Amino acid sequence: MAALLLTPGPTPIPPAVAAAAAAPLLHHRSPEFRAVLERVLDGLRRVYRTDDEVVLMTSSGTAAVESAFANLVAPGDRVLCVSAGNFGDRWVTLAAAYGAEVETLRYPWGARPDPAEVAARIAGRTDLAVAILVHSETSTGAVADLRTIAAGARDRGCILVVDAISSLGAAPLETSAWGLDVVVSGSQKALMTPPGLAFVQVSARARERARAGGAARYALDWERTLVAQAKGQTPFTPAISLVCALDVALAMIEADGLEVRIERTRRMGRGVRAAVRALGLELYSPDHDDCGLVTAVVWPQGVDGEAVRRRLREQHGVVVAGGQGDLVGRILRVAAFGAITPGDLVQGIAALEIELLAAGHIVEAGVGVGAFERGYAR
Amino acid sequence: MAALLLTPGPTPIPPAVAAAAAAPLLHHRSPEFRAVLERVLDGLRRVYRTDDEVVLMTSSGTAAVESAFANLVAPGDRVLCVSAGNFGDRWVTLAAAYGAEVETLRYPWGARPDPAEVAARIAGRTDLAVAILVHSETSTGAVADLRTIAAGARDRGCILVVDAISSLGAAPLETSAWGLDVVVSGSQKALMTPPGLAFVQVSARARERARAGGAARYALDWERTLVAQAKGQTPFTPAISLVCALDVALAMIEADGLEVRIERTRRMGRGVRAAVRALGLELYSPDHDDCGLVTAVVWPQGVDGEAVRRRLREQHGVVVAGGQGDLVGRILRVAAFGAITPGDLVQGIAALEIELLAAGHIVEAGVGVGAFERGYAR
Repeated sequence: MAALLLTPGPTPIPPAVAAAAAAPLLHHRSPEFRAVLERVLDGLRRVYRTDDEVVLMTSSGTAAVESAFANLVAPGDRVLCVSAGNFGDRWVTLAAAYGAEVETLRYPWGARPDPAEVAARIAGRTDLAVAILVHSETSTGAVADLRTIAAGARDRGCILVVDAISSLGAAPLETSAWGLDVVVSGSQKALMTPPGLAFVQVSARARERARAGGAARYALDWERTLVAQAKGQTPFTPAISLVCALDVALAMIEADGLEVRIERTRRMGRGVRAAVRALGLELYSPDHDDCGLVTAVVWPQGVDGEAVRRRLREQHGVVVAGGQGDLVGRILRVAAFGAITPGDLVQGIAALEIELLAAGHIVEAGVGVGAFERGYAR
Repeated sequence: MAALLLTPGPTPIPPAVAAAAAAPLLHHRSPEFRAVLERVLDGLRRVYRTDDEVVLMTSSGTAAVESAFANLVAPGDRVLCVSAGNFGDRWVTLAAAYGAEVETLRYPWGARPDPAEVAARIAGRTDLAVAILVHSETSTGAVADLRTIAAGARDRGCILVVDAISSLGAAPLETSAWGLDVVVSGSQKALMTPPGLAFVQVSARARERARAGGAARYALDWERTLVAQAKGQTPFTPAISLVCALDVALAMIEADGLEVRIERTRRMGRGVRAAVRALGLELYSPDHDDCGLVTAVVWPQGVDGEAVRRRLREQHGVVVAGGQGDLVGRILRVAAFGAITPGDLVQGIAALEIELLAAGHIVEAGVGVGAFERGYAR
């Protein structure tokens, strides 16, 4: 059965994007590819809302976050990691792997970091090399109030690194206006492109620091890539087919308008939360309008969540994500960004209703779908 | 105009492989993708001719070579780099970036390393951590006699790392039988898949060394990936669409037979060299049966090579590579592996003849094509 991906990465690929990925390959040193690359880098800058450079990498988002450590952190440097979930925890491990003195500001999984507290831990400090923060914690659905954090931490000595892997293009993110230093994202989330590309916006200040220090690195080196990109090239053979696919996806995003897409995510998130409530299920992600990118739902007592997830996939072709870490088997996660439409979510909610009816957990059909429609339309 | 890639990476993508890259995405944690991943890892082991583990990376081949340094080299470790071209030189730079004490054994660009000399520099030494060697130097077309080198260096303390990025699947390479430790390759060469995936075969000995040392690393860490792969997973979101494409390509290679494909490359290389000679052009790559993967040709005096290359691309849709480093503008390079067929090469040679006729450099049409046919058939 064809699968409908409602997962927070990979997300569904629009047919035109998939077709671009399957077109005969351009050579990466050809003038044709150079034009694609330059268009993609310009398009990324517009999605990032920045005039700074964006490093294009052929890698996972994780390796792109790693590039921030490789370029900025030497052993013994102090790094502040703000964590409220699986990805926040991953960056703690990564910082430790780079020999950093790690200082962790932890929030319970599923919580939104307290913006004033986070800002206070960054502002005015002279002993921090890097502070890293997850914008959208994909493992829980909690989106941090990055705008307030950045405003409160404007006066800082450290480089502020933001993991925006699942938020870029799905949530408000004003890289230049908010004064962010390094913002990392990936192709397979709101940008509707298959996984394999990642991006790092690098401010002039961050670039200068990277030139002067960091760890041993080669492919992850920002300067090497930025020097090549300034000549319309990549330093190594890139994932050409994915770059060409991203080119099409960025044009679609541009045609829609970034604000329209972000507002659609907000409305779809509202709808999903309304459906969850109407079905008597418990939200794991914050019940907040800014947290509609990923909705996490606690499987009710007596329901074998992983069995339901399997039936959703096998009987309905609907793929939702499970929990990560301690949440394996305890939650499901539904995305509402990228190419996911309200109709896709209706299909997913209906499939869930059918399975919950069969499990005897709910008695009335259609209430979730109805609540979604009202929440979305509101 | 649709482009016929005769370049040594990327190489042309067979339609069935391209179609797989454009199919609806599988989720990387789904049982369907797990089956694909396990098939791909098994298929890679067969192409590598090894029972050891193969690390699958979402990266360029360069980053995969880097992973050998990141996993095996600590600052101050002594590394022997054998270089006879652009890629050999790149690994010298990479070794230096990792703080290694670099010892370089250099050969002129275009030469094949002397197997006895290389083996003697490795065998019996106790002060070397790593020796790195390029199997097929894509920048010049020279293929090293890896079998003889490996046999002569069997008795070694260091880890022998082989850059087989453009040779795996195109030249004889017996990873286990020749006792190689670490062999790196990529998707976009003989494996007929778009760029973005790279592979590192890791022997038990190399894996043990990596566990005990190396540099700061996370995404490049072999152990992290091998532990995930043992569970049918990848540690991070992989380039799913490319893995599915590689799955189809590996099945095609298996159906053909590896030996048949390697022999076809040998015959195509013979044909190309015969054509070059018949056209009165000078070979840059060695005139040797083992060096048919990439044929490098010196542009004759009075011919503006880059202008001809542009005309080949714009007027004939034929893409050949130019020179790298000091060879920019001085040579052209034609590949004869992956999905490239004898017919493709005939088309490329004919286009070159047309342009050399127009430039007044040759007078008789068809001699190159005729020589190719005889060389290939021989």
